Amino acid sequence: MKQGSEDVFEKVMDLAKRRGFIWPTSECYGAVAGFIDYGPLGAMMKRRVENIWRHFYVLQEGYYEIECPTIAQEAVFIASGHVAGFADKMCQCPHCKEFLRADHVADGGGVKNPSVMQNEELSLELASCRCLACEEILGKVEVFQFNLMFSTTIGPGSQRTGYLRPETAQGMFVDFTRLLRFYRDKLPFGAVQIGKSYRNEISPRQGMIRLREFTQAEAEIFVHPSCKNSHPMFRRYADYTMPLLTYVRQEQCEPPVSMSMREAVEKGIIANEYVAYYVALTHQLLVQTGIKPDRLRFRQHLPEERAHYATDCWDAEVFSGRFGWVETVGIADRTDYDLRAHGDASGTPMTVFIQYDEPKKVPRRRIIPNMSVLGRQYRTKAKAIFTALESATPGPSGVCVEVDGEKIQIPPDLFEIRDEIVDVRGEDIVPHVIEPSYGIDRMCYAVLEQAYDEDTADGETRIVMRLLPQIAPVQVAVLPLMARDDMDLIAGEITRTLHKSGILAEYDDSGAIGRRYRRQDEIGTPFAITVDYETRENNSVTLRERDTMKQVRIPITKLPETVGALLTGNIMFSSLVH
Amino acid sequence: MKQGSEDVFEKVMDLAKRRGFIWPTSECYGAVAGFIDYGPLGAMMKRRVENIWRHFYVLQEGYYEIECPTIAQEAVFIASGHVAGFADKMCQCPHCKEFLRADHVADGGGVKNPSVMQNEELSLELASCRCLACEEILGKVEVFQFNLMFSTTIGPGSQRTGYLRPETAQGMFVDFTRLLRFYRDKLPFGAVQIGKSYRNEISPRQGMIRLREFTQAEAEIFVHPSCKNSHPMFRRYADYTMPLLTYVRQEQCEPPVSMSMREAVEKGIIANEYVAYYVALTHQLLVQTGIKPDRLRFRQHLPEERAHYATDCWDAEVFSGRFGWVETVGIADRTDYDLRAHGDASGTPMTVFIQYDEPKKVPRRRIIPNMSVLGRQYRTKAKAIFTALESATPGPSGVCVEVDGEKIQIPPDLFEIRDEIVDVRGEDIVPHVIEPSYGIDRMCYAVLEQAYDEDTADGETRIVMRLLPQIAPVQVAVLPLMARDDMDLIAGEITRTLHKSGILAEYDDSGAIGRRYRRQDEIGTPFAITVDYETRENNSVTLRERDTMKQVRIPITKLPETVGALLTGNIMFSSLVH
Repeated sequence: MKQGSEDVFEKVMDLAKRRGFIWPTSECYGAVAGFIDYGPLGAMMKRRVENIWRHFYVLQEGYYEIECPTIAQEAVFIASGHVAGFADKMCQCPHCKEFLRADHVADGGGVKNPSVMQNEELSLELASCRCLACEEILGKVEVFQFNLMFSTTIGPGSQRTGYLRPETAQGMFVDFTRLLRFYRDKLPFGAVQIGKSYRNEISPRQGMIRLREFTQAEAEIFVHPSCKNSHPMFRRYADYTMPLLTYVRQEQCEPPVSMSMREAVEKGIIANEYVAYYVALTHQLLVQTGIKPDRLRFRQHLPEERAHYATDCWDAEVFSGRFGWVETVGIADRTDYDLRAHGDASGTPMTVFIQYDEPKKVPRRRIIPNMSVLGRQYRTKAKAIFTALESATPGPSGVCVEVDGEKIQIPPDLFEIRDEIVDVRGEDIVPHVIEPSYGIDRMCYAVLEQAYDEDTADGETRIVMRLLPQIAPVQVAVLPLMARDDMDLIAGEITRTLHKSGILAEYDDSGAIGRRYRRQDEIGTPFAITVDYETRENNSVTLRERDTMKQVRIPITKLPETVGALLTGNIMFSSLVH
Repeated sequence: MKQGSEDVFEKVMDLAKRRGFIWPTSECYGAVAGFIDYGPLGAMMKRRVENIWRHFYVLQEGYYEIECPTIAQEAVFIASGHVAGFADKMCQCPHCKEFLRADHVADGGGVKNPSVMQNEELSLELASCRCLACEEILGKVEVFQFNLMFSTTIGPGSQRTGYLRPETAQGMFVDFTRLLRFYRDKLPFGAVQIGKSYRNEISPRQGMIRLREFTQAEAEIFVHPSCKNSHPMFRRYADYTMPLLTYVRQEQCEPPVSMSMREAVEKGIIANEYVAYYVALTHQLLVQTGIKPDRLRFRQHLPEERAHYATDCWDAEVFSGRFGWVETVGIADRTDYDLRAHGDASGTPMTVFIQYDEPKKVPRRRIIPNMSVLGRQYRTKAKAIFTALESATPGPSGVCVEVDGEKIQIPPDLFEIRDEIVDVRGEDIVPHVIEPSYGIDRMCYAVLEQAYDEDTADGETRIVMRLLPQIAPVQVAVLPLMARDDMDLIAGEITRTLHKSGILAEYDDSGAIGRRYRRQDEIGTPFAITVDYETRENNSVTLRERDTMKQVRIPITKLPETVGALLTGNIMFSSLVH
């Protein structure tokens, strides 16, 4: 029975808990909503997902990873707008005292567009809605803002407020000038971060989908504003074709339309080559982690949904039988909003000096004060007047300058106007930022949900996680047919040899061989090596593929190389079957 | 000029900042003490250090990694003792208002053993000490406790106090029962975690050595208490020999003594095989990251220095020209302290059922009450008396039981004493924990400090970071002699081919070739490929080794394999030189 788009949430989470993928956190003290533990298999799988991400962004794209603290000082989030604006509307049920997200309650009550309402308006609408926890009609409730950042204090004596970062992005913006120097003052360049981010969600109820502590992988790509339509490697994805759910088609209730990235850019559907490039790269990356193309779509933000500073934004959404289409990656053109905000707030200009191909001749008017007369006439104020004159615009009757709050009229005979042509070598520009932002936990959940399958083996239902070999936590099982007659020793030796090649092999000798295969199938181990009586005769073992359950015999000496190549996808198992 | 143990702190940190290893965090807003950013090269190097750690603990030892949240609920840290006891003594300078660690001030003032003093006693001693910030004599100051955990609130309405974990260890203790099931109820097993931990230090002043947010790599190995002296793989390190600074030798002011792990265990110098095994493994691991054996020592905790529950503890200390001997790894036998604490506090027994080889015959005395008489005589209290009798110890005149606060004397004729022999299949035991705990940031600092070197190249001083190939952030530079005549195109192609093999190659075509070599030497890039005019004739390039500056010519087609083998240490560069 192949699982389609039905809801396998309960089955997957049961397996994930039972076998050590995902656990409720500090369960023995009562788990806390919005936090999870990655168990032994989950943490391994998550790391493999992150490493695929790194392969794309760090190796292929050449964007170095940096690592900023998860706690940052308040100034960073004042500038970014998070202190003032990173809040959800909240209300409290008067009956069960549960805190609720006001927009979720309103959604449940069929209220249209609650997210654009003011607090008072929303409060009126909520009166007739039911509490999401106790299901009573709410009645009169107050709606208020709740800031989603976790706050803390840095140092003793309440010296300094700090926040747990709500996104990894800000660290890269704040480091802009250092990054620019690292990349030797040349655009475009990028920096990436994989790490924890934190949002103090009001009432998280969706397992791995809405977490208070989660892992993001974000890339910030700094581009010259007038070069956004010429990504140097655009040809790599120009012909990459996929269904796009544009905002126009959403408004017209039309299904996605399939087109190449080149076409999407040319038709103005995707804002520029940079956004299109990362839309396509994201598609390729998600599919490589095991997300099926038919459960993946790219949806453009509606104009009213977009952040005010963004010019275009696309979400990669993955279909879940339980949660519907889940936003998993966002790819946005954030323009110069972030660098301007931090440049202004910190007083450190976040600009790049762009040299012209040839210096430009630019006319400039200079005002040359007559210092000796000025000095005699204005004495101590002469220097301030001198400075003020430099940027003044004189009229026929001279110029009025302001010095220490006093307005002083300087007659035209006290200065000379000189018109010059000067060489300007270049200009300071504020780069634009293209940001692909990935939710690693949501990717992991999608991979788990889509890998879950049941089929039949030996006349019984078999649960099998069809994880790709690149993602599976245990890469190969090593099973002695019996734990005796040297078979256990040989299997132990094979395990250690594989470890030395960096392959995660798991030795297991307990129980019937069929039961051991089932155990490995259930955690998605793609291959199993069995040491049997024939092994002692000719030093060969069987190699079994999880999905087809087919087996081939190969020499022990070829194991590291063959298993390694199967895991990277350099060879396919079918090519080994004669 | 080879750098010895002199203080190169300023030089290393200057290079680290300038070239993108380590940056002050959110510098444009004024850096915050105790936090650092890993820049592009630093983050890459740190990840390579972590991966070496994983190779030892996850692959070799077979201890799976898990990932718990960095925020945990208060109950966890009440049980662990951190809420009550994880504090430093603090005072505030009355002159400059700076908060200071009281023990550090006292140390500076020559006070003996300030760490064992009570607050009042320490306060008196501090009166004549100088402030570490403004250097005034303190005078009368109050000493108080400052808890080092960062606290925050989970959810709206101040619902729940949470703390940023001060160590990763607690997550693994709290998950004990799930881990036990994952490892199919068999001891020994281990779990590891690499991740952020947080300590709200009072006044951190030591760069990367004392951070408020830092990365730990911890392993918790759960062992049967009576098997601590039989590590199943002890033979791996039994003959591993290194200098040990035992507590006895410290008390006698003697230098370390060199011995094998077997000898250290046999002589009772190291408490057991488990501790000795991880002491040796740690030595091997640190040396593999590039820490020099002659700047590394293992120091045993003095009895008064040890945590009250630990039976033995060894610190790996690395010598720094600036900071002296720095504790970098701790290896402790924590006994059953942690599992008992969480078992008691949570009500979840953290035990393992150990089955005897054969059931044991155990004598048991049972008390069988005469229910009909008891019922008639005591009515509603009969049931409670019945229960109380089961665990009572009767004397010749019967037994006194307490029911609802009332003492009742039960005469011997109301019960029968029966002595039985029962089969006991096994027992529940609380495992002991062996914990190797690594400070990743301190390892990174030590690696940077020890890699820093200066020598002479082309008659000029050359700064060279002698990072091991396994650790160097950029693994190979690809340099076209000139950025023309196809040399740039060939070099670009080589770079992409190397990326596909997972090798971090950096293309650089700007500036004279000598200057480019210097740039790569300074960031520790171990190898450089140069594409020159000969390349176009015979498809060969030069391969240069950083340390010797020697070059060999090899065919382009052999690059991925050769560079890959050089990076893993499978071949040495000298074997390529004819």
